[in-house]
Amino acid sequence: MLRQLLPRAGRAFRAFRAPAARQLLPLSLAARQPVRCYSIQPEAASRAKPVDVDPSRLSITKTDSPKELKDPAALIFGREFTDHMLTIEWTQQDGWLAPKITPYQNLSLDPATCVFHYAFECFEGMKAYKDKNGNNMERMNKSTARIALPTFSPTAVIDLISQFAKLESRFIPDQRGYSLYLRPTMIGTQKTLGVGPPGSALLYVIASPVGPYYPTGFKAVSLEATDYAVRAWPGGVGDKKLGANYAPCIVPQMEAASRGFQQNLWLFGEQEYVTEVGTMNMFVALKNKETDQKELLTAPLDGTILPGVTRDSILALAREKLAPEGWMISERKYTMKEVAEASKEGRLMEAFGAGTAAIVSPVRTISWKGEAMDCGLSEHEESGEIALRMKGWIEARQYGDEEHEWSHVC
Amino acid sequence: MLRQLLPRAGRAFRAFRAPAARQLLPLSLAARQPVRCYSIQPEAASRAKPVDVDPSRLSITKTDSPKELKDPAALIFGREFTDHMLTIEWTQQDGWLAPKITPYQNLSLDPATCVFHYAFECFEGMKAYKDKNGNNMERMNKSTARIALPTFSPTAVIDLISQFAKLESRFIPDQRGYSLYLRPTMIGTQKTLGVGPPGSALLYVIASPVGPYYPTGFKAVSLEATDYAVRAWPGGVGDKKLGANYAPCIVPQMEAASRGFQQNLWLFGEQEYVTEVGTMNMFVALKNKETDQKELLTAPLDGTILPGVTRDSILALAREKLAPEGWMISERKYTMKEVAEASKEGRLMEAFGAGTAAIVSPVRTISWKGEAMDCGLSEHEESGEIALRMKGWIEARQYGDEEHEWSHVC
Repeated sequence: MLRQLLPRAGRAFRAFRAPAARQLLPLSLAARQPVRCYSIQPEAASRAKPVDVDPSRLSITKTDSPKELKDPAALIFGREFTDHMLTIEWTQQDGWLAPKITPYQNLSLDPATCVFHYAFECFEGMKAYKDKNGNNMERMNKSTARIALPTFSPTAVIDLISQFAKLESRFIPDQRGYSLYLRPTMIGTQKTLGVGPPGSALLYVIASPVGPYYPTGFKAVSLEATDYAVRAWPGGVGDKKLGANYAPCIVPQMEAASRGFQQNLWLFGEQEYVTEVGTMNMFVALKNKETDQKELLTAPLDGTILPGVTRDSILALAREKLAPEGWMISERKYTMKEVAEASKEGRLMEAFGAGTAAIVSPVRTISWKGEAMDCGLSEHEESGEIALRMKGWIEARQYGDEEHEWSHVC
Repeated sequence: MLRQLLPRAGRAFRAFRAPAARQLLPLSLAARQPVRCYSIQPEAASRAKPVDVDPSRLSITKTDSPKELKDPAALIFGREFTDHMLTIEWTQQDGWLAPKITPYQNLSLDPATCVFHYAFECFEGMKAYKDKNGNNMERMNKSTARIALPTFSPTAVIDLISQFAKLESRFIPDQRGYSLYLRPTMIGTQKTLGVGPPGSALLYVIASPVGPYYPTGFKAVSLEATDYAVRAWPGGVGDKKLGANYAPCIVPQMEAASRGFQQNLWLFGEQEYVTEVGTMNMFVALKNKETDQKELLTAPLDGTILPGVTRDSILALAREKLAPEGWMISERKYTMKEVAEASKEGRLMEAFGAGTAAIVSPVRTISWKGEAMDCGLSEHEESGEIALRMKGWIEARQYGDEEHEWSHVC
């Protein structure tokens, strides 16, 4: 009852990449040697874009009622927004329409809009300074393409975000540690319930002034190693910044909080690989058991890890500044057991999360299988040396103390 | 460096369920015997509901401009909606506010609303007849609780939906096969970017008249067995009807379509277990290799499978009507290899998907590792016998031909 697959058309056939030789194998043999015949090619999903984003078509409508600035000390992350927003509509027919800066206002959407039903949504978070090579707009394109939303020219959108951020710069308090948090977001806007690629979308950017994550200096956090809920899976979308990755993590976060832990440390598989912490990448500094060499360690980008921009910066800085001091800088899989053994043997120097919001977030303890594991901080320390140095290096570049290609946008 | 975890408070300690004995084990032994210390208790996330949904507080504002009815033959799933919508707002402070039926209208939402960023959204699909025991409102509560959205009284919401459906009944064409598709949806509406449980939410229901899924009789579909993308995993949320489960499946659906297949057949793991088809549950009918006994087979509810209402109906009907004919009715894990061997040996009688939209959807072929596998239909057949009988049995109950507890709502 098995027959050769007859592809319908030449185009379909070219997309069909099962090696010809395999098609001759008897089924039982094929089953013993599983291969993955296809892989996700999200580029294929990025449909016709007759018109890319065009910054020269930007229109600006300023608000008639500028907001009063709040007391900087009272700012809470993501609660206060600036006067305006940047929006760019897309339709399958016409591509990207003219960008607009308008007064900050509600979105008016049909209740059948696909973003409400099927989570056609992704976002980025950035502060009002530029990432090396505009990395996170490229990452955003990977997110959009993975869920059949349109891609765009990263440089065009960075140009527009830069203009938007300049317009809103009065919202950034003139004190070190303050910045404008920018939230580029894309949602599918097709107004039908059929499950398929959206024929229209909206890219918008809102901005929120934010204060320092640790206004009075670092405060080390405690993590709960989480195995009963799994954040991401090979073949899933854990390496994309999709809304879909966030809502399912809130109940585990609440459960950890109910036991006194600030964040989840997401484990994976029977081996209990360490993956990410809360919404940050995880770094561990330990001494090698045999050689005593210091190693700065983070999980590799295997599809279950978000390729964080701060993660990149930390790895780059570590290779530049720590490797010459004799450190080994590793992107490799590592298990909770390995971390616990290092802790037990006094070889775990420190652990920290890394993300846009806090830059680095030192870890005091990890609860694993009902035991609290020390992460190398003494009682009165709130950060290890590496986390502290990393934060200093990154901030020096962000605030322009140091001339560097990671320069400011505005 | 390991020390006993000291829970912060009595309440936290009670939630902490690691067996006391395990805490005495040395770490190396504990690591060899991994246990899952906690499990998701979504009920814990359902915060204070000082006021449940109260149908007696319903207000109805009718539209001034009733829509013209469309030609029934031209209806496309989920594109046309009725005159009104049902909405119920929730806030953490006040619980469920008074339900409203209003003219169908856009939702006006702040661009920072958490549904746009973190996919706080879930839905149900039902036709204007009642499921046994109001099952899918109970399922919706499981979805909402899993993503920290509020739960509600299923009977109260079913009562409201029933009133809403009655009000819109003029939209259902008076011909067999037509019904009102109802889409209860819940979204988080908190207007802040911090990643946490939403402090406000909106439950709304819209209605769309739909025609028969197969207006001219069954049309068997071809599936592509998909291993390069994974829909759901243990510890994930594949058993909940969350928006998060849908957007990531669209690109694989487009890839399958580009090769001429209507749907993905989602496989899981190295064993290539058969899980679901597109957005439907999967059923297979085959003859046992040794005993020749007929078996109707579907994957068990292991956390990666959506507990479909139609799946339940089919299993119940099969146990009632097929088991006495000698059929074995099985919910068990099964692999593509097992299905392929049955196909090869002429023991695969038929395969079909099951869901609210189509009820049953017969399968002609499955492409697996580059080969097309026959699913038991002869060239001119569009359905196997079991799919046909199931559709008849279910429709008889839906249209009230047969007196049964699965009665009509309106």
